[in-house]
Amino acid sequence: MKQFNVGILGATGAVGQKFINLLQGHPWFTITALGASERSAGKSYAEAVNWIEAVELPDAIASMTVTDCSPASMKGVDFVFSGLDASVATELEGDLARAGIPVISNAKNYRTHPHVPLLVPEVNATHTEMIKAQDFDPSGRGFIVTNPNCVAVPLVMALKPLMDAYGIQAVALTTMQSVSGAGYPGVASLDILGNVIPFISGEEPKIAAEPMKLLGRLGGDQTVTEARFPIDATATRVPTIEGHLLSVKIKFEQKPASADEIKAVLRNWKHEVSGLDLPSSPRTALKVYDDDRFPQPRKNAYNENGMQVGVGRVRMLEFFDAGLVALGHNTCRGAAGVAILNAELLVKQGFIQ
Amino acid sequence: MKQFNVGILGATGAVGQKFINLLQGHPWFTITALGASERSAGKSYAEAVNWIEAVELPDAIASMTVTDCSPASMKGVDFVFSGLDASVATELEGDLARAGIPVISNAKNYRTHPHVPLLVPEVNATHTEMIKAQDFDPSGRGFIVTNPNCVAVPLVMALKPLMDAYGIQAVALTTMQSVSGAGYPGVASLDILGNVIPFISGEEPKIAAEPMKLLGRLGGDQTVTEARFPIDATATRVPTIEGHLLSVKIKFEQKPASADEIKAVLRNWKHEVSGLDLPSSPRTALKVYDDDRFPQPRKNAYNENGMQVGVGRVRMLEFFDAGLVALGHNTCRGAAGVAILNAELLVKQGFIQ
Amino acid sequence: MKQFNVGILGATGAVGQKFINLLQGHPWFTITALGASERSAGKSYAEAVNWIEAVELPDAIASMTVTDCSPASMKGVDFVFSGLDASVATELEGDLARAGIPVISNAKNYRTHPHVPLLVPEVNATHTEMIKAQDFDPSGRGFIVTNPNCVAVPLVMALKPLMDAYGIQAVALTTMQSVSGAGYPGVASLDILGNVIPFISGEEPKIAAEPMKLLGRLGGDQTVTEARFPIDATATRVPTIEGHLLSVKIKFEQKPASADEIKAVLRNWKHEVSGLDLPSSPRTALKVYDDDRFPQPRKNAYNENGMQVGVGRVRMLEFFDAGLVALGHNTCRGAAGVAILNAELLVKQGFIQ
Amino acid sequence: MKQFNVGILGATGAVGQKFINLLQGHPWFTITALGASERSAGKSYAEAVNWIEAVELPDAIASMTVTDCSPASMKGVDFVFSGLDASVATELEGDLARAGIPVISNAKNYRTHPHVPLLVPEVNATHTEMIKAQDFDPSGRGFIVTNPNCVAVPLVMALKPLMDAYGIQAVALTTMQSVSGAGYPGVASLDILGNVIPFISGEEPKIAAEPMKLLGRLGGDQTVTEARFPIDATATRVPTIEGHLLSVKIKFEQKPASADEIKAVLRNWKHEVSGLDLPSSPRTALKVYDDDRFPQPRKNAYNENGMQVGVGRVRMLEFFDAGLVALGHNTCRGAAGVAILNAELLVKQGFIQ
Repeated sequence: MKQFNVGILGATGAVGQKFINLLQGHPWFTITALGASERSAGKSYAEAVNWIEAVELPDAIASMTVTDCSPASMKGVDFVFSGLDASVATELEGDLARAGIPVISNAKNYRTHPHVPLLVPEVNATHTEMIKAQDFDPSGRGFIVTNPNCVAVPLVMALKPLMDAYGIQAVALTTMQSVSGAGYPGVASLDILGNVIPFISGEEPKIAAEPMKLLGRLGGDQTVTEARFPIDATATRVPTIEGHLLSVKIKFEQKPASADEIKAVLRNWKHEVSGLDLPSSPRTALKVYDDDRFPQPRKNAYNENGMQVGVGRVRMLEFFDAGLVALGHNTCRGAAGVAILNAELLVKQGFIQ
Repeated sequence: MKQFNVGILGATGAVGQKFINLLQGHPWFTITALGASERSAGKSYAEAVNWIEAVELPDAIASMTVTDCSPASMKGVDFVFSGLDASVATELEGDLARAGIPVISNAKNYRTHPHVPLLVPEVNATHTEMIKAQDFDPSGRGFIVTNPNCVAVPLVMALKPLMDAYGIQAVALTTMQSVSGAGYPGVASLDILGNVIPFISGEEPKIAAEPMKLLGRLGGDQTVTEARFPIDATATRVPTIEGHLLSVKIKFEQKPASADEIKAVLRNWKHEVSGLDLPSSPRTALKVYDDDRFPQPRKNAYNENGMQVGVGRVRMLEFFDAGLVALGHNTCRGAAGVAILNAELLVKQGFIQ
Repeated sequence: MKQFNVGILGATGAVGQKFINLLQGHPWFTITALGASERSAGKSYAEAVNWIEAVELPDAIASMTVTDCSPASMKGVDFVFSGLDASVATELEGDLARAGIPVISNAKNYRTHPHVPLLVPEVNATHTEMIKAQDFDPSGRGFIVTNPNCVAVPLVMALKPLMDAYGIQAVALTTMQSVSGAGYPGVASLDILGNVIPFISGEEPKIAAEPMKLLGRLGGDQTVTEARFPIDATATRVPTIEGHLLSVKIKFEQKPASADEIKAVLRNWKHEVSGLDLPSSPRTALKVYDDDRFPQPRKNAYNENGMQVGVGRVRMLEFFDAGLVALGHNTCRGAAGVAILNAELLVKQGFIQ
Repeated sequence: MKQFNVGILGATGAVGQKFINLLQGHPWFTITALGASERSAGKSYAEAVNWIEAVELPDAIASMTVTDCSPASMKGVDFVFSGLDASVATELEGDLARAGIPVISNAKNYRTHPHVPLLVPEVNATHTEMIKAQDFDPSGRGFIVTNPNCVAVPLVMALKPLMDAYGIQAVALTTMQSVSGAGYPGVASLDILGNVIPFISGEEPKIAAEPMKLLGRLGGDQTVTEARFPIDATATRVPTIEGHLLSVKIKFEQKPASADEIKAVLRNWKHEVSGLDLPSSPRTALKVYDDDRFPQPRKNAYNENGMQVGVGRVRMLEFFDAGLVALGHNTCRGAAGVAILNAELLVKQGFIQ
């Protein structure tokens, strides 16, 4: 297999650290550049970072020199992963794409761009066709691909097979999101220890909007026609470390016969990368639990390196047709992990060479 | 004011301890009997109890002798509060009522009995008329009154003014319930630290059913015609100590004009005990928060001695008409506190003399 | 009783908020000025503050206008409580003292000043004599009094009666400190949820030094001769909200006969304000627990409005003579509460008039 | 390498589950028998167990049939790991040893037996000579080896190199122990959420006694002469999941020159299995941290599959010579993991064949 040199943008931030953690031992990708702010550039990574991951900083990364995020600093890489802050991502990611470097981004800035795929490989792998309509780099080498918000990922993974089977009229959603979703330092311990905060700024609109693009239909003209159904979302913060839990209630266009039927649909899902054997692809993308007590963030979010989505409590309801809970590891499956999977897909599809 | 001697049934349990805690310094009620299991009878309360309240066990209670829960042992009291376990409540509570002793119970056993009021004074104070149809004690002195499940209390307090204003078609609910709701020892720390459990056994049916009786209409024949709308509930356990947080979404019969209008309805609620000046009545039964970050269990559940219900995040939705979060202190407002308020109401109404 | 107008310096900070909380309903002191940074000056307190206390912000305070901390802005007060940050306290507190306004400070800046009392009333009430040697204000009206670090307070309260009875040769100490001790936002939830951090920057030197001044002997010349024994301290942060727990081991000059004897010494302590009846004085300053499982931060730190210190696990050891654990509410007894008690003492002693 | 069939005693308990978890993919050992109580015997493991590990129950184990713990039921295994409760371990472990089956036990029952090694391979690998004096099984095939308490393991690993270098006079110790150390259901969440419990029943005597045997000297007669120095211990429970943190202060016979010298001694430790290349041996048995904030339970206890012990905050003190903190994963390094390492050592040494 061809090996690729990759750069990490925002390498000292929480998402950047997760990229570094998850890429250790990756069979295709080797980190050769670490981009951060001007303030960090020139320092060793060990000096520049306040390492917050729960595994030790790898020695090989610790001694690398941090650069800025300019095309010049990234010129030796085949592509970059971006964990940049939204305040700088528009310009820096655009510059790299224009300079011919593919950008696989976790930032929100380009998610709504009409020619930028918002991508979860199992759900909408074909949306990468949108890349061909991008004009960042006339040569076609540079482009931008994004992954969605950390709640949208497990949500669309649970909804996609059900939408295909039954059609969706409406969704009600309450999330219980872990503190790692707020970055670092993020949520103050005085605010969240033994507590729940019933609001996450800016979250609910993203949760309602992004699934529409993800579940949309790719047309012949490399554009996506978005899905259209309401998602009434309430986003809350709970004192968990990693793993967002979603309480989902769904009104379908065609009523399922039973909870068992719904479970069978979820278990038998043939998703869009089932046969591709991507390195970060979980063997079971969607695990369905029969035991009502599961899935749980602390016990199940780390399944298959944090790339599996868990679904439980599938049951029929009275006003809605059915309810379920879904769990996704927010910084793996919902951020850095899905971005790596996106890059693997783009390699397979030939967009990254 | 007349003083009343009260007994506590299940005095060594979690709810019993909360009764003892909340009744310290009560202007009308003095604890004169502590009933527990045969195993505890004869011991001092200090010996019999594993005190779990976060305040110190009062000396005067510590030295009292625990008895069993029989009518003979309770013969000196004017009425009893019951925190009995469901496995024994049917018989023991019935025996006391038959012996002429009013029973104000937190147990679930008689909640669905057609002549037993399920009571939250602010919501359905008039339902105490149902007592007159009870036949436990032909003399009329002994009777049973119950309070609902700890989630149902804040739910109906938030719904009642809205139902009166707009009518309710359907409710979707996800709860985030504290560990004190499971009694003691209750939830194992290994199960809940840094975690969420997406299921609470037996909870969702109670949450769906009890509000129908609470929000029902008292007829001339001392019976209640239940309300009828679906409540699709998901009950979860989160690592908070006290205070259940509810994410509520409501479809009304008449659509409200705006979130501000809904807030005004909630703030202007003239509830059924507004003018009674009951000792445990909060000055503000329903507090509406404008700051999206509130109410929070650890910071707001204890307001007005745990008797205030908080409502926040009132907003219009797309599929539902409106959403909100509601917070109630589960062991005060949702259990021992509401039972005490029920007793105070019954004194005012003359049922307890 | 004469009433006093008081100002709060650093009113929007964590300690300032605790002052406001604790002074609600105080029988002698009324808050009439709220001083904060230039950035907050001119705003209403409700606008300026991010209120983090677990009780609601009092309406009367919410509507007050915040000022800066200059003598001009504080000219109507009888004295001030200071919760100022150390970076500004030296200048601002000095200015007020020089302008004739007594400063009762929780900041560390003047704690080691040779003429400034470091005061815990029960332990060293007579040290206020040191004020007479201060030269901030030639008229004698303005002066500065400080309280110690939040660990030093419960430590010296447990050690003082034992030092008087047995003499102390050495102390080994490991603290388990709550997150509120780090202010706000303080400790990131990602760092402390389900975790312990074995270090608190700058804490151990203060814990070793401050007790020497507190336990020192006042001479005829208004100076204090410090006590001299080593305190080998390890300060750690644990995921508790309020209440610092101390594991203490003591080598005495004279070996106690038994753990029971030590407990009797602690229980019979006639401390220095026993007879003064100060409003914030707990009835029992030092509570000794016989049950090995106590004291515990969440259950016992709030005793007597957070002003009682708990001592438990008193036992004889092998290398050391005896061991015990001590618990103090860090933001009440260890900060704002002890400062208020200091002010009450100064009123009784006539220093504040 | 020869393969071994192993049985797990107490397979459904917390320690038994950890054995199962850690043995997945072990290069030498394959689980072929699962022993539990009569109540579980005959059920599939999936039916019998309440699986609490944070990874999913392996399918191959789930379908195995649970047996009792008798020699007859274990007759096909080469040896057993015991996670039995102390109430039954004396008899059941003795029976197996007498039946010729080596027992590698985590139970405390035989730890103080004069001919049973209390073993941490890095510290006292040669103590396995004691086995030769055992008379459970005249043929010599059956014997018992134990591992120490979960606090004693990291403690002796930190102390051993220092004792060899400087001699030890006395140790003061305060532990902050995770909830998993109490088994399941163990500590009630109502007791430990946001709290510290300053006592663990029965723990401190074990912590003081077991290191004496572990650090003792093996004589020519297959007996161990215990070390002799006092360990004044305070054991506390904190709301962490896994990983016991120890605050240690040491008085040496010869004073170290500096903290750096002590760190060098710890880093250069040539422990007793350094060259043996055991499968569960961490590459770095003792990791020394220079950053004062580490080691931390949640972030560092899992290093090298939970088999590495972390040491930090090495510093000179005033009354003691030096202080440090040590961290060990209590259910891996301090229980099931060290037992597996013990078995690996016994294979290498030829005791298990």
